[in-house]
Amino acid sequence: MSMSRGSNGAERLVVIGGDAAGMSAASQARRLKGPGELEIVAFERGHFTSYSACGIPYWVGDEVSDRDELIARTPQEHRSRGIDLRLRTEVTEIDVEGGRVRARDVDSGAESWTAYDKLVIATGARPIRPDLPGIDALGVHGVQTLDDGQDLLDTLTGTRGRRAVVVGAGYIGVEMAEALINRGFQVTVVNRGREPMSTLDPDMGRLVHRAMEGMGITMVNDAEVTKLHMGEDGRVRAVATADAEYPADVVVLGIGVRPETALAKAAGLPLGEHGGLLTDLAMRVRGHENIWAGGDCVEVLDLVSGRERHIALGTHANKHGQIIGANVGGGYATFPGVVGTAVSKVCDLEIARTGLREKDARRAGLQFETVTIESTSRARYYPSASPMTVKMLAERRTGRLLGVQIVGREGAGKRVDIAAVALTAGMTVEQMTALDLGYAPPFSPVWDPVLVAARKAAGKVSRGAP
Amino acid sequence: MSMSRGSNGAERLVVIGGDAAGMSAASQARRLKGPGELEIVAFERGHFTSYSACGIPYWVGDEVSDRDELIARTPQEHRSRGIDLRLRTEVTEIDVEGGRVRARDVDSGAESWTAYDKLVIATGARPIRPDLPGIDALGVHGVQTLDDGQDLLDTLTGTRGRRAVVVGAGYIGVEMAEALINRGFQVTVVNRGREPMSTLDPDMGRLVHRAMEGMGITMVNDAEVTKLHMGEDGRVRAVATADAEYPADVVVLGIGVRPETALAKAAGLPLGEHGGLLTDLAMRVRGHENIWAGGDCVEVLDLVSGRERHIALGTHANKHGQIIGANVGGGYATFPGVVGTAVSKVCDLEIARTGLREKDARRAGLQFETVTIESTSRARYYPSASPMTVKMLAERRTGRLLGVQIVGREGAGKRVDIAAVALTAGMTVEQMTALDLGYAPPFSPVWDPVLVAARKAAGKVSRGAP
Repeated sequence: MSMSRGSNGAERLVVIGGDAAGMSAASQARRLKGPGELEIVAFERGHFTSYSACGIPYWVGDEVSDRDELIARTPQEHRSRGIDLRLRTEVTEIDVEGGRVRARDVDSGAESWTAYDKLVIATGARPIRPDLPGIDALGVHGVQTLDDGQDLLDTLTGTRGRRAVVVGAGYIGVEMAEALINRGFQVTVVNRGREPMSTLDPDMGRLVHRAMEGMGITMVNDAEVTKLHMGEDGRVRAVATADAEYPADVVVLGIGVRPETALAKAAGLPLGEHGGLLTDLAMRVRGHENIWAGGDCVEVLDLVSGRERHIALGTHANKHGQIIGANVGGGYATFPGVVGTAVSKVCDLEIARTGLREKDARRAGLQFETVTIESTSRARYYPSASPMTVKMLAERRTGRLLGVQIVGREGAGKRVDIAAVALTAGMTVEQMTALDLGYAPPFSPVWDPVLVAARKAAGKVSRGAP
Repeated sequence: MSMSRGSNGAERLVVIGGDAAGMSAASQARRLKGPGELEIVAFERGHFTSYSACGIPYWVGDEVSDRDELIARTPQEHRSRGIDLRLRTEVTEIDVEGGRVRARDVDSGAESWTAYDKLVIATGARPIRPDLPGIDALGVHGVQTLDDGQDLLDTLTGTRGRRAVVVGAGYIGVEMAEALINRGFQVTVVNRGREPMSTLDPDMGRLVHRAMEGMGITMVNDAEVTKLHMGEDGRVRAVATADAEYPADVVVLGIGVRPETALAKAAGLPLGEHGGLLTDLAMRVRGHENIWAGGDCVEVLDLVSGRERHIALGTHANKHGQIIGANVGGGYATFPGVVGTAVSKVCDLEIARTGLREKDARRAGLQFETVTIESTSRARYYPSASPMTVKMLAERRTGRLLGVQIVGREGAGKRVDIAAVALTAGMTVEQMTALDLGYAPPFSPVWDPVLVAARKAAGKVSRGAP
């Protein structure tokens, strides 16, 4: 195991992927081990490192003026910390047996092998791009990378048309709808599901639907895109579904992402049912002593359902990187799993969830009670108190909290953290009713909305049939 | 025990005190038992019921225009629910042995005895009013009750002077400073402690101090008021300390409150070291089968230090009332204790704490590490991301979270809830580093500020001496 592929007897760590997970791992490992002990080579096929993909909608929406603000650490900064970073270099093969990776210079096409003692796979996710007629038309954009964002911005500023169609109504879809509204476009969102935000139960998604309509967004649900119409200039002209056609000067695809694990699959590494790499709690690829993986290319344990999920989210990727770096660097850290927390907004509407939706709970074999309550973000009488809706799921008999969904205005979204911590701790809704949360009229009603829901849920569980 | 003092064989519940705890108890008991089973008599010496004393600063500061908005439930509403509410009626004696209370009509002076089967004591707290020369001058105001608030408003609108002195720099003091600034006064806050907000450690209080000065508030620390100077018209003219004199057209006392337990003490009921009633977990007065107490007149168990504290806060009072009402009404509920969460603001500065300060932890016999970090409320690049400071205490060896203090701008204060839930669950700071909190650029940096503090604290604990 300690063949020391690096120079002068140092071990060599190879990192595949230069964004959050990969470069956090590299940086943390470097903090723990100097260049004399550990050589670090990182391959990144794009131009950028350590950037906030989650920030792209706000850059496109002109709330963040400069692309570079999204970059947490530049290639130069990484190199100055003793990381041999190779941009525009794509890893094309992992030779697990031989302990080496083959990389290709994207520009020259030159290929070469690099041996590793330890390997970190942080290849991220790729956006789902349905194989539809017209999908390659000009003006059809994904928003996964900074390059994607720049291409989209070029289209937005280059077109005189003002009609935008967003395909997909999940986080990226609604955030892009906001961005396009901010850029002065008329926005139609075409959504396959019953309601937008399928990460919520449909009754909560319905609230998002209504609010989006109130913002002037045209929301088309239960609609599958069948074709993209192209003009003679090769530019997109319209988005077609089975029932209708929506004129479009620009189309944004926000359908979701899948783990980018083709390399790992070809190398015979273990993948889960969602196509993500499977790791142990130390983020080590299962069955492989010297390979770690993290970020959008892995599956994570959902602590509430006890099953693996794929969640592409920068905050997890950063944690994974930190943990991998600690373990690679000779320390010790673990990632126990997630509870499925997510927060987003569309204009002034805040949307949050944690834990299980009704269908997740059923799939996990759980029986549960649900309650939905209306409350306000501040004391009812305090200026700018805004309404919010909280839905809560609690397990039958045990009363254990299973999930919370929140839709509201300013002050609604981050309240989900209360439930996220309670879920992590395995609290019952009855225990939650006694939580000592921050109260003052500018911050909360005397019963915080989450507590109002917990009280109602506790009552329902205790009255429930045996 | 079931002598049935009420009419027609119904039990009689007597409630002393018509604000949050008392009337919540009465209302909850009424929900569970109809008038045929339970007669409810409630005595309130003032004019109002169920109002938000915490809202008074915002009414005085003209953010809430109408006093009645602070009233959650009027006397008429309580009566319509079958509660025999007697306003302007002060209970002057509890005869525990005889199971009765003596009450006096405040206006007529007439006294009479009322027998009870069950008694709820919710006498609240009274503001500390130091016995200083000039304390009874016109223009010197407390802000405990709605009547106090009205008196203060009358002074503010009646005086041409624009100089206000606030005595005390705790929650009420800083909130009143904001209210007076809003009313166009020049505000001086005279504070006995080293820094304002003694509910924080002095290093965090120092941040509040600087911010208040930035708002144009004159902050005088380490200063004990010795005298209030009065003009020939009987109106306050200045506030004197040992070193200086501060001209004042109005003085607001915000020194704090003590449990109002003179009645309980005279009746031989058990009081704790802070002068509050001592109860069991069901909020029953210790050693008394048929007497409950809750709200600002009781001491509560601090779950972190394991000791009793006195905390006057509407959110606790409401919970106590709910719990007492459930128990009195034949249900079952308990109040496990508090972790000491509080949040407040002065203008746009948000101030929050939960758990133990350094001196609380030392007093509890705990050894600990502290860390303080700077972060932002949203992703650094997102518009209106504002700086915040988080201080965290973690126990040596176990790494258990002991307390968090936060000072920042918009979005800082309610983050304390994350720590409040983690404290309740007994989490270690290492466990906290893995918390799955809501992340999106408009809501949080990729590492939430509380997680940044937890990571630093975890590192310090693990590096600590054995």
